[in-house]
Amino acid sequence: MTELPLTPTIRDLPASTPFVGPEAIERRRGRPFRARLGANESGFGPSPRALAAMREAVAESWCYGDPEGMGLRDDLAAFWDVPAEAISIGAGIDGLIQTILHTVVQPGTPVVTSRGGYPTFNYHVAAFGGVLHEVPYRDDREDLDGLLAAAHETGAPVVYLCNPDNPMGTWHDAGDIAAFARRLPAGTLLLLDEAYAEFAPAEAVPAMDTGDPRTVRLRTFSKVYGMAGQRVGYAVAHRDLIAALAKVRNHFEVNRIGQIGARAALADTAHTDDVIAAVAEGRADYARIAEDLSFAPVPSATNFVAIDVGGPARARWLVDALAEQDVFIRMPGAPPLDRCIRVSVGPADARGLFEQALRRVAREMPGDPGANT
Amino acid sequence: MTELPLTPTIRDLPASTPFVGPEAIERRRGRPFRARLGANESGFGPSPRALAAMREAVAESWCYGDPEGMGLRDDLAAFWDVPAEAISIGAGIDGLIQTILHTVVQPGTPVVTSRGGYPTFNYHVAAFGGVLHEVPYRDDREDLDGLLAAAHETGAPVVYLCNPDNPMGTWHDAGDIAAFARRLPAGTLLLLDEAYAEFAPAEAVPAMDTGDPRTVRLRTFSKVYGMAGQRVGYAVAHRDLIAALAKVRNHFEVNRIGQIGARAALADTAHTDDVIAAVAEGRADYARIAEDLSFAPVPSATNFVAIDVGGPARARWLVDALAEQDVFIRMPGAPPLDRCIRVSVGPADARGLFEQALRRVAREMPGDPGANT
Repeated sequence: MTELPLTPTIRDLPASTPFVGPEAIERRRGRPFRARLGANESGFGPSPRALAAMREAVAESWCYGDPEGMGLRDDLAAFWDVPAEAISIGAGIDGLIQTILHTVVQPGTPVVTSRGGYPTFNYHVAAFGGVLHEVPYRDDREDLDGLLAAAHETGAPVVYLCNPDNPMGTWHDAGDIAAFARRLPAGTLLLLDEAYAEFAPAEAVPAMDTGDPRTVRLRTFSKVYGMAGQRVGYAVAHRDLIAALAKVRNHFEVNRIGQIGARAALADTAHTDDVIAAVAEGRADYARIAEDLSFAPVPSATNFVAIDVGGPARARWLVDALAEQDVFIRMPGAPPLDRCIRVSVGPADARGLFEQALRRVAREMPGDPGANT
Repeated sequence: MTELPLTPTIRDLPASTPFVGPEAIERRRGRPFRARLGANESGFGPSPRALAAMREAVAESWCYGDPEGMGLRDDLAAFWDVPAEAISIGAGIDGLIQTILHTVVQPGTPVVTSRGGYPTFNYHVAAFGGVLHEVPYRDDREDLDGLLAAAHETGAPVVYLCNPDNPMGTWHDAGDIAAFARRLPAGTLLLLDEAYAEFAPAEAVPAMDTGDPRTVRLRTFSKVYGMAGQRVGYAVAHRDLIAALAKVRNHFEVNRIGQIGARAALADTAHTDDVIAAVAEGRADYARIAEDLSFAPVPSATNFVAIDVGGPARARWLVDALAEQDVFIRMPGAPPLDRCIRVSVGPADARGLFEQALRRVAREMPGDPGANT
């Protein structure tokens, strides 16, 4: 190792990558996937109006995007009926998580999350020298009581909660989330990742309350809006927190075409409704397939379904076997969630490829109870 | 102020914005600019091949971009004849500066730069709690001896140098840069911002040497490639430094369409050459206009020209007066550079609007020696 003037935090940090992208797997395989169902992208794609707006906006590529993202923030403010000063845009929820952690985590700061939750959150906590306190899931849901106890024990300035949850797809009701937020220590922020909220029942989503200084809502154009490749997310929070983010964020981080596309996508509520309906149908489809193979689908309020296949060895075997069939899916990273595979809801053709491949390989799964179906 | 659990660094950091974007100025004015010549964007636009590639790639917006950016990095590796492991991509040079500072700056870390240099660099240093040591320019160039002395005095782990320089457009020869790098303390990184290198004479640009663990080269698709809105930049450095960046960077920060456009832009060397020639012509044009009005253009190796107008009050007056004429330019932020205005080289029509507006307002400039021309 060359002598580099790294900070102690970075010097001691092991190399890690939150996710190996499907492109890297394709390079290793030397063959593209036919069904891309591992990253909870939306194969239904963006609104046709967003696609048209982005194609037209390509001509503006020579101009920096508005660093304040004002057009998009004004639209979001109207959409949510909150002040634009309560909204910050960022390069996806990942970018916003990084920016928020920058403002509250320094070496040694305790941070609370769920064991097996979003790896990118953990990755950014480590990058700022934070110390993770991981609370096990309970019955495949994030454990609100456990997270609350950990927050009080550690005095963590931030608790991460994904609702509905990734990777399990389960959810808590808005009332329980609100009660959880109220019971956190006075100096603790709730980082509420709602990447999948549009797919959830209305009762799972708390009302926006930008008067609450302790809850940060994270939203994205990567999921229901089908624009993962554009890197546009936003935080809704008390304006004082948004002002703090503006002290550290990369002001030009959100690209111009993405901002324009996001505005068009937000406006096309009919497309959003269509995607939500199609995803609900796809979830039912996956549940039927899973049960037919004697697997246990976990009820989901997201655009993916976790399917209990009986154990981590089986899940790993299935992920690899499906990749052999050119179908990209993933599995949760930590026990006991890793007895499941996780498959994103794509359009019917992609789901068909998944179903065919799963039926084909499930027969050969070692010690597989589904082998006889 | 609400009680937020901010780190001491962030709590004590004053609110600041590196740049107010032209969109914000337009909102204040209630009127768009007709010539956008203040942000060193390239009005010549991207290669037609890049535009076509990006329009086609919009259909892929639903997919995350490759977090490793491997296709683009492979192309850049071939372009520069360096290993792909010596290249990291980021959301523009701004994103890379932020990532690099994350690895080397903690509260109290000294950092060396030039007084009046790139404000966004200073902004990110402050965000990590670093302490800036600013060295005055000498004869409108960054002062290599001064920067060297400051690096040795402070033991800073990082020295920032922009070559050719922004905001002045001046440059140092490759030999002087290389000697400067060699004479830095053993534990000091040279962050060599080469956003404008393609516009510079060949002798201003050191050869790429990824065996050197102390120099990081920063490059961008925002300037000569005309893709500022897409947020694609890259760092070329020793592979150990690139590996350190991979511990903290937002792996998904570069959008998919930008990555695809950058590959097409890089390949279209004829377009790049055309832009370089057109920019050289535009610089000569600005020099002629400036001299005609008895102003003093500063020789430039970039896509902009700093024009000495005789003092900071005059420069400020001209920036405002040109804005009144719907022409957006900027001026350097610190003395003695702020006796200049800075105008980006755009296509002939934008340059014409600038020339007309400048001739019109220069007559009325208070105490202006150019008023009689």
